[in-house]
Amino acid sequence: MTTPIPAGGADSLPPRIDVCEVGPRDGLQNHPVIYPVEARVRLVDALVEAGARYVEAAAFVREDRVPAMAGAAEVFRGIERRPGVRYAALVPNLRGLERALTAGVDAVVTWASATDSFAQSNTGRTVESELSGVLDVVREAREAGTWIRGFVSVAFGCPFEGAVSPETVYRVASALLDSGVDRLALGDTIGVATPRDVDLVLDRLSAVIDPSKIELHFHDTRKTALANVFRALQWGVTTFDSSVAGLGGCPFAPGASGNLGTEELLYLARGLGIETGMDAAKVRVAGQDLVVPRV
Amino acid sequence: MTTPIPAGGADSLPPRIDVCEVGPRDGLQNHPVIYPVEARVRLVDALVEAGARYVEAAAFVREDRVPAMAGAAEVFRGIERRPGVRYAALVPNLRGLERALTAGVDAVVTWASATDSFAQSNTGRTVESELSGVLDVVREAREAGTWIRGFVSVAFGCPFEGAVSPETVYRVASALLDSGVDRLALGDTIGVATPRDVDLVLDRLSAVIDPSKIELHFHDTRKTALANVFRALQWGVTTFDSSVAGLGGCPFAPGASGNLGTEELLYLARGLGIETGMDAAKVRVAGQDLVVPRV
Repeated sequence: MTTPIPAGGADSLPPRIDVCEVGPRDGLQNHPVIYPVEARVRLVDALVEAGARYVEAAAFVREDRVPAMAGAAEVFRGIERRPGVRYAALVPNLRGLERALTAGVDAVVTWASATDSFAQSNTGRTVESELSGVLDVVREAREAGTWIRGFVSVAFGCPFEGAVSPETVYRVASALLDSGVDRLALGDTIGVATPRDVDLVLDRLSAVIDPSKIELHFHDTRKTALANVFRALQWGVTTFDSSVAGLGGCPFAPGASGNLGTEELLYLARGLGIETGMDAAKVRVAGQDLVVPRV
Repeated sequence: MTTPIPAGGADSLPPRIDVCEVGPRDGLQNHPVIYPVEARVRLVDALVEAGARYVEAAAFVREDRVPAMAGAAEVFRGIERRPGVRYAALVPNLRGLERALTAGVDAVVTWASATDSFAQSNTGRTVESELSGVLDVVREAREAGTWIRGFVSVAFGCPFEGAVSPETVYRVASALLDSGVDRLALGDTIGVATPRDVDLVLDRLSAVIDPSKIELHFHDTRKTALANVFRALQWGVTTFDSSVAGLGGCPFAPGASGNLGTEELLYLARGLGIETGMDAAKVRVAGQDLVVPRV
């Protein structure tokens, strides 16, 4: 008989995880439908009502370039702010940060890409240039007393360069940590990671940060998202991004899954006996009310 | 620093797995489109060309009740039999077995449900009655020198009864093993399992069978299929069912994923450095040629 795991198996997984709900921002920013501010406000409020304690609610980006995120300040004016909830916004630069601070965000998300090719495609910059912009944003955000999440894009694979070495991720992640971000998040932006990649990246990063402090963002493009979450749980990771209704499907692959759905993450967590503090039924209704509004 | 897994991580996973391709049978039997024999023959041949060494090619069931599986003998006449490949067929009873043996199958799949409610709904029988039918089929198949797979349906959850206790699975699985089947397979027929369920079932069954000899069949209905495969790999399981193009989506939930797709299983395996002997590109083309035929 082979029993390569300890008796009790999943008993060694974390007893509780934090779910970062990114649907209203990352999800809707990459969704084929553009929703008005009111619908986005309702979605944020419904997710908080469902138990979310971190919600990416908006992005302070150029509205002419990203119409899906237009009216970010109005979103923040509209949502019902509840204590104990971190209402976050993506900010690409100092101008975005200024708008976000004026709108009264609790937290900002800033990022750098793991590869120059992706940085070039996404922001027209190099990784070094993105990191230098991050430094500015973090400095100003810290002065304003705002919580900051530093995100590494394409940390598990790049659409242009293919595999991304753990060493590369380590360098970008270290720069973000050195800049003074409160939390470090790693994104599998194109949904290519397998548990082996989780091993390689977490193993390398564990030299500078305890895996339990790393936040992970998976896409289900190749149906590996929950396998990666499970593997990360075995490493002690306790914070995961997910998107209500799986919002954020890749616009280039109709029908393909995009962001890991919050419903699926909660399903896995419940099955493993892991607390999330969220009500899966309410999350499901929040997603359905957006996608198929009740009349 | 927490490193709850051995250095090298996935290195302790099996170096190779066997993929049981169930698309032409389980997939097409539960597919909204009914394909003619010629298309099903082409699919089987293409999957073998892609490296499959076990293909469920047809079901010898009542053609008036299951028109998608009509012409099973013609399928077996049409396929190009290659040495080293096990061409299997589902047989529900002695009449089906007789037809299958006449058609020259290499292997038969017979099954019992883990719950009476599912047995009643599926075959109008009890689990005991199904098991008694299995005994007949296995005896005759063994006399004919035909390889036999014994399958436990709804081993991880039942649409009518909900959770299925590992003890129940153990009883049905033990009866199948005692009957003399060559291999035991467990099916998560409705796609509800999480890695915790994999732990519970494999832990109980390890009293009578080494997990490396158990074959697992997952559905991706709730996106947990590859997480379950990964967990099972950690237990040393080396044989997994999958269905080309994910054929077999649940007819009651439009858009929901059904069978774990062979493409996804191969993607995970490749990422983990696990050999399958299959060519993922050829599998993808085989699926596309069926669903969107080239003209």
